[in-house]
Amino acid sequence: MYLEKINGPKDVKTLSLQELTALAQEMREALFHRLTKTGGHFGPNFGMVEATIAMHYVFDSPTDKFVFDVSHQTYPHKMLTGRAYGYLDETRFYEISGYSNPDESEHDFFTIGHTSTSVSLATGLAKGRDVTGGKENIIAVIGDGSLSGGEALEGLDFAGEMKSNLIVVVNDNEQSIAENHGGLYKNLKELRDTNGTASNNLFRAMGLDYIYQEEGNNIAKLIETFQKVKDIDHPIVVHIHTQKGKGYALAERNREDWHWCMPFDRETGKPTISFEGEDYSALSGAFILKKMKEDSSVVFVTAAVPDNVGFPKENREKAGKQFVDVGIAEEQAVAMCSGIAKNGGKAIFGTNATFIQRTYDQFSQDVCINGSPITTIINYTSVMGLGDVTHLGIYTISMLSNIPELVYLSPTCKEEYLAMLAWSIDQQEHPVVISIPGNGVHPARYPVAADYSQINRYQVCEQGSDVAILALGDFFQLGEEAAEEIMRRTGKNVTLINPRFASGLDEDLLEELKQQHRCIVTLEDGILDGGFGQRVAAFYGSSETKVLNFGLKKAFYDRYDVMELMKKNHLTPAQIAEDVIDLLG
Amino acid sequence: MYLEKINGPKDVKTLSLQELTALAQEMREALFHRLTKTGGHFGPNFGMVEATIAMHYVFDSPTDKFVFDVSHQTYPHKMLTGRAYGYLDETRFYEISGYSNPDESEHDFFTIGHTSTSVSLATGLAKGRDVTGGKENIIAVIGDGSLSGGEALEGLDFAGEMKSNLIVVVNDNEQSIAENHGGLYKNLKELRDTNGTASNNLFRAMGLDYIYQEEGNNIAKLIETFQKVKDIDHPIVVHIHTQKGKGYALAERNREDWHWCMPFDRETGKPTISFEGEDYSALSGAFILKKMKEDSSVVFVTAAVPDNVGFPKENREKAGKQFVDVGIAEEQAVAMCSGIAKNGGKAIFGTNATFIQRTYDQFSQDVCINGSPITTIINYTSVMGLGDVTHLGIYTISMLSNIPELVYLSPTCKEEYLAMLAWSIDQQEHPVVISIPGNGVHPARYPVAADYSQINRYQVCEQGSDVAILALGDFFQLGEEAAEEIMRRTGKNVTLINPRFASGLDEDLLEELKQQHRCIVTLEDGILDGGFGQRVAAFYGSSETKVLNFGLKKAFYDRYDVMELMKKNHLTPAQIAEDVIDLLG
Repeated sequence: MYLEKINGPKDVKTLSLQELTALAQEMREALFHRLTKTGGHFGPNFGMVEATIAMHYVFDSPTDKFVFDVSHQTYPHKMLTGRAYGYLDETRFYEISGYSNPDESEHDFFTIGHTSTSVSLATGLAKGRDVTGGKENIIAVIGDGSLSGGEALEGLDFAGEMKSNLIVVVNDNEQSIAENHGGLYKNLKELRDTNGTASNNLFRAMGLDYIYQEEGNNIAKLIETFQKVKDIDHPIVVHIHTQKGKGYALAERNREDWHWCMPFDRETGKPTISFEGEDYSALSGAFILKKMKEDSSVVFVTAAVPDNVGFPKENREKAGKQFVDVGIAEEQAVAMCSGIAKNGGKAIFGTNATFIQRTYDQFSQDVCINGSPITTIINYTSVMGLGDVTHLGIYTISMLSNIPELVYLSPTCKEEYLAMLAWSIDQQEHPVVISIPGNGVHPARYPVAADYSQINRYQVCEQGSDVAILALGDFFQLGEEAAEEIMRRTGKNVTLINPRFASGLDEDLLEELKQQHRCIVTLEDGILDGGFGQRVAAFYGSSETKVLNFGLKKAFYDRYDVMELMKKNHLTPAQIAEDVIDLLG
Repeated sequence: MYLEKINGPKDVKTLSLQELTALAQEMREALFHRLTKTGGHFGPNFGMVEATIAMHYVFDSPTDKFVFDVSHQTYPHKMLTGRAYGYLDETRFYEISGYSNPDESEHDFFTIGHTSTSVSLATGLAKGRDVTGGKENIIAVIGDGSLSGGEALEGLDFAGEMKSNLIVVVNDNEQSIAENHGGLYKNLKELRDTNGTASNNLFRAMGLDYIYQEEGNNIAKLIETFQKVKDIDHPIVVHIHTQKGKGYALAERNREDWHWCMPFDRETGKPTISFEGEDYSALSGAFILKKMKEDSSVVFVTAAVPDNVGFPKENREKAGKQFVDVGIAEEQAVAMCSGIAKNGGKAIFGTNATFIQRTYDQFSQDVCINGSPITTIINYTSVMGLGDVTHLGIYTISMLSNIPELVYLSPTCKEEYLAMLAWSIDQQEHPVVISIPGNGVHPARYPVAADYSQINRYQVCEQGSDVAILALGDFFQLGEEAAEEIMRRTGKNVTLINPRFASGLDEDLLEELKQQHRCIVTLEDGILDGGFGQRVAAFYGSSETKVLNFGLKKAFYDRYDVMELMKKNHLTPAQIAEDVIDLLG
């Protein structure tokens, strides 16, 4: 076995072509070994085995520097840079993250998880090299799906003006997460169809040199190609045509389903774990499809993650022209929604919280200044959502709720989520974002309003005294539990409030609470800084009423245990009750 | 005179070619009339006179819908849509904003001030039309400079996949604000040089149809061109070659200086008003140039606004390869800086606050998660800065200060600004942003630290009791005045604190303040929501200490009078003193 003996790239360079081919086979087996048990990004890694071997054979990492876009295709790179144990030894799987990670290895330069950043980061490495007298190769590896993102296009355009070494490997497997969307993919096809010779060429049009390699899973051809561009004195695109999911027939056939996988059975391809019951993706999709049928002006827009927000293939087909996937292009998505709303349509945008970060300016300028009544549903805003440091949603309230005119709704249960969605789609007054609940599908325990047009009107669910708990969104159930705990320990009824609006204060209610409450508790599923609770604390700053804010400390967290993190942040019902009782004395 | 009689586009359509030519001349005179007195965007408007006439001659606004990128070139459009008085009648200049504005006219669909948004917004109008059964033309007008922005490139790529009417007029005057930067400009030149026939074509590579018109200031040719594409059933780019600043020799020769102008004398081109004394742009430029000379690894990066942040042409020449203008591409700028820092360089990024909004994700992902010690200097963060609703900087603290790991410094005077800059450039621990003071160049009245490595350590400037004022950044002088007023009225010394760090709390100091202070006052030059003061209020939420936060109410403000807005937000020294004395009882 070769893979076990590879401690770093220098061990790759000593192998013959035949041995490298055997190594590729071993690497695929190692991928199966890990992915069948842990799940993860399947297609991107199976497709990049040969290219990664060839890259390490030709270039001299870490002197030569690789930057992998999204870095979800770095499993083969990790195997060849001293981290094969993370794929061979089941007891060590969790030592290795799913993305590039400088803490793991000197061969990784950035922690990366968002798309479309590699070229820009690489231009920076190149500029750093140039001002410090370095001579190394800088290599960005970017998938075709990532090319549609604004940062990638800005990066390519900038690179087209550079006058020193930069190699951009475009890993073209003809697929984004779902289908590719955008006119540039027609050009990629033209280039593939002409073996890279088409006279019209996106990369050349951006000022870059270009070569093509059709056999993107042929180690010998790839070595030859990379050797041609090594130490080049100007930027060049190396366009390689690879097979996403190569080596597993099911994944080769169904590239969307096998972009990312759950733990699975290798024989059947079926997931070995499953979730039962309702989920918000399906609920959202079904609800929006129904709205679309009733109203042909309803348009649902996503940016390359249709499946996460209720639009797997069958729903896309049902929606027809009322569904739009803009590809990885959140800026386009949000601005387009504003345009749709200004011309008679009812636009709904859906994506994951972490990707919403790419659209701050579009929310501010294209949407909110213009008062465009678009609806945005945001997945994975919760601490209980995605746990990789690059994919956290816990900054969403802090980021969006302070943009003027934006109404940020935080539903507490299924019925409320759907009611808010129904209201938002049809209203014509406000830009609205709705966080998709992230703590499981809870049924309503309190009456659910149909109309949210009285902005910032909170709902009093239980009337008590002394203590009032404002339990926002996903932390409403935590608020219920904390209230019970306080009541159990003090014998007094606690006021329980569902704020519903993360973006503003119900000043009348807050004023009224002063009368019979000494302590106001806020709970929010996000960082405290810039969030909901601090706004409440400021409201009571000059009064006798005390405020305790509960939420997460402003920080980056990585692959954490949710319960542990909650405890550390004093977010268990017992801890909350303890703090409140302490304060009341 | 024709212009006075034009109440709307239908009046344009009745004129002969000869009359249209006379109209163009009158429009330029009207531009002179206004711009010599008010200043504004010069070059973009003088270049677009003929194209605007032709557009209104051919298309039927407002049924057909124009979206102007940045909308700083809409003066001619405004003249032809019932707003000529804003250019002819000096007493009515201020009724008309410098950007497109739906409140002014049904011919404007969006309030726009940022670049690179027009194509995306137009795709939305087109989609809205398509789902509601409309038939009108949707026309985006975008300058060559705006093409490098990620949102524009995402928009073009998306448009390349559309199957219905969309017309993108690329107004190519061979100039951004300063020079264009990016490889795509080589392709635009190739297209101009070949009368649009070059086989390599950025727009076609993005899937778009394309035609070229070399004579972009020839009304007849433009009419002919627009007539060709009117009612087209698919997206097309109409590339027109215009002369920026056309009709004023000085502006034709010096396109950068005449992109935007102060009020000026038409004979000489000299500004008729001038500012005396030091300004932070010059101070920044001189300081950074000096650092560059001492250390060849220092790189200054801007995104198309070099002049605003200390790098007019002479400084760019001095800086040589240590200066980089990425063009309008803030995402690229910030990510590149991270790369520079990771490969031995010391990266400084400088831009205007309002454009920083386009880089939230890059700060979070490319920079802060990676701990890249880049320095960012941000201009116009103050309420005293740019006053158009699309250009406000008062959201900057709220947006950036809540991103984990980002150190946000708010200097209070010239010496402190330069000391912070010096410290930040050389340190290797933290991503740092520094707001460039926006309330004039003040000399230091208190000792200025050289070292800011003790993150979140505030400076106590005056020790008093009962009341402590935390006066952040540009509102430090306001804090001094408020302190004096309180002392005058109560006879007691007030504690005055320079927080220096907008992004975190000096918890030891805040704890200590509890002993001898009943009231803590926070002042910040920005919106209150998500800002500095609310964090302070939360800290004291459960204590006896009272907190009063002063800052701006979360809202969009447009072309306001600063003193009036300050008063409305209770931000005069007398108002602050009044509130404090009221609270103390």
